[in-house]
Amino acid sequence: MEWIHKRNVLIVGLGLIGGSYARALKRLGYRVLAIDRNAQAIEYALSHHVIDAGCTEPQADVLASADAVIFALYPGVFLEWIRANQHLLKSGAMLTDVTGVKSCIVYEIQSMLRPDLEFIAAHPMAGREVYGVENSDDRIFRDANYIVVPTDKNTEEGIAWCRELGQILGFSHICVLTPEEHDEMIGFVSQLTHCIAIALMTCSENRHLAEYTGDSFRDLTRIARINDVMWSELFLRNKEPLLRQMDMFMREFSEIRDMLEAEDGEGLRAKMRLSTERRSYFDKEI
Amino acid sequence: MEWIHKRNVLIVGLGLIGGSYARALKRLGYRVLAIDRNAQAIEYALSHHVIDAGCTEPQADVLASADAVIFALYPGVFLEWIRANQHLLKSGAMLTDVTGVKSCIVYEIQSMLRPDLEFIAAHPMAGREVYGVENSDDRIFRDANYIVVPTDKNTEEGIAWCRELGQILGFSHICVLTPEEHDEMIGFVSQLTHCIAIALMTCSENRHLAEYTGDSFRDLTRIARINDVMWSELFLRNKEPLLRQMDMFMREFSEIRDMLEAEDGEGLRAKMRLSTERRSYFDKEI
Repeated sequence: MEWIHKRNVLIVGLGLIGGSYARALKRLGYRVLAIDRNAQAIEYALSHHVIDAGCTEPQADVLASADAVIFALYPGVFLEWIRANQHLLKSGAMLTDVTGVKSCIVYEIQSMLRPDLEFIAAHPMAGREVYGVENSDDRIFRDANYIVVPTDKNTEEGIAWCRELGQILGFSHICVLTPEEHDEMIGFVSQLTHCIAIALMTCSENRHLAEYTGDSFRDLTRIARINDVMWSELFLRNKEPLLRQMDMFMREFSEIRDMLEAEDGEGLRAKMRLSTERRSYFDKEI
Repeated sequence: MEWIHKRNVLIVGLGLIGGSYARALKRLGYRVLAIDRNAQAIEYALSHHVIDAGCTEPQADVLASADAVIFALYPGVFLEWIRANQHLLKSGAMLTDVTGVKSCIVYEIQSMLRPDLEFIAAHPMAGREVYGVENSDDRIFRDANYIVVPTDKNTEEGIAWCRELGQILGFSHICVLTPEEHDEMIGFVSQLTHCIAIALMTCSENRHLAEYTGDSFRDLTRIARINDVMWSELFLRNKEPLLRQMDMFMREFSEIRDMLEAEDGEGLRAKMRLSTERRSYFDKEI
């Protein structure tokens, strides 16, 4: 078990996800360190025993003590952090992340990283519609997927270490995808659905409809409450895969619209039967 | 209370919604009669005490005894039923329905109805993704909306009676809309969202993505399991309002897509902030 040798874990970025990692790892007995620019986040985490030690700047002694480092930052901030601070990290340290897009950062990080460090990318597909370490809770990992995203530069040990991290955090599903596979998949199941939810809310002044909405509309638009800074960056950094998914969806939606205009009842029923059949596969996975 | 004088209630169409009406009304002490072509539905309802009496054909004595009649049929079947059987109904009987579209049937029914009968349309916005009287359950009305949809032909008494029906069934929200207002609203909050869910499932062979999906994708596509015969009829009978809603959504979705292509981060963030603000009004109503 690789993890036995990684006693000191540093979390960079102590928000909802970083905080949830911290809670799980601390309960497992690791010494959890954290860096966050927000002093209140560090104070909260210390006073609530979410972390063992923390600071608001990348202190040399903290970075030098970390056997493993988990980056829970926005993609651009993550790239900047590595550029500015990697010289302070302990030789042999294992690095991973929680970023929601991969191709646009994994290769860049790995190409600039010191040869005695390894970065193995991961995407914990868990979240809430609230933010901050105050709302962190590692129970959100329980029924969620954890995706390990290796490249040719990763070692077998690094991949195994990252899978094991997903396991000890409590994720129920752990799988491996290439950066490109990950980005197409996330473009469809997450980013496209967020775009749809946003468009549903912004396409008209619909506030007066709130009193008439049933569960289906609420379900479709729950994710329309969105952190604009984080999600716009994720969309822009996954531009090509997301555009492909959006165009694919629009072509299909237009086809259904045209069937309605042409009063093609059999065409509509065939779409509904296919939709019903396909959706059943998603229930089986719950 | 008008309802005191309506002791015998006839439900025509004993499926999920008809059965849920029956359960609520029987518990309130009404004598509940039912007609359904499916003999198994009637047998089930009788043996489980969901109704007091039932038949599979419109029997003259049953129709003549009903003080109130609730139609829970597909729109086309409803129109046919009135044409064929209204001569058998008791003079002074009050008629209502549960149909999900209004303009296309309310005016036609009212124009052909005997002058000694009154039809006041209603839409109980409740449902489940399962069907049949076996799955009926009037708890689905608890947090749901009940919409009374009168026209110039309705009396004040008829409108009051229909509102009261919504109250005694246990709906938490009762409101009044014109047929045209109802159809635009339902085109947006229900039919458009179903079209989106269908298109998400049918736009690609995505079965392999089931293992990666999080809650947001499952929430968006839950309603992609759909009764094709009923929903295709509802879409086609609400063609113009639904086309308007679909076109409005597509214009907005395309605008967001083009912002992404143009890498217009500020435009995307503005959409997300508007979406977040608008969605908050929908939470307050829960």
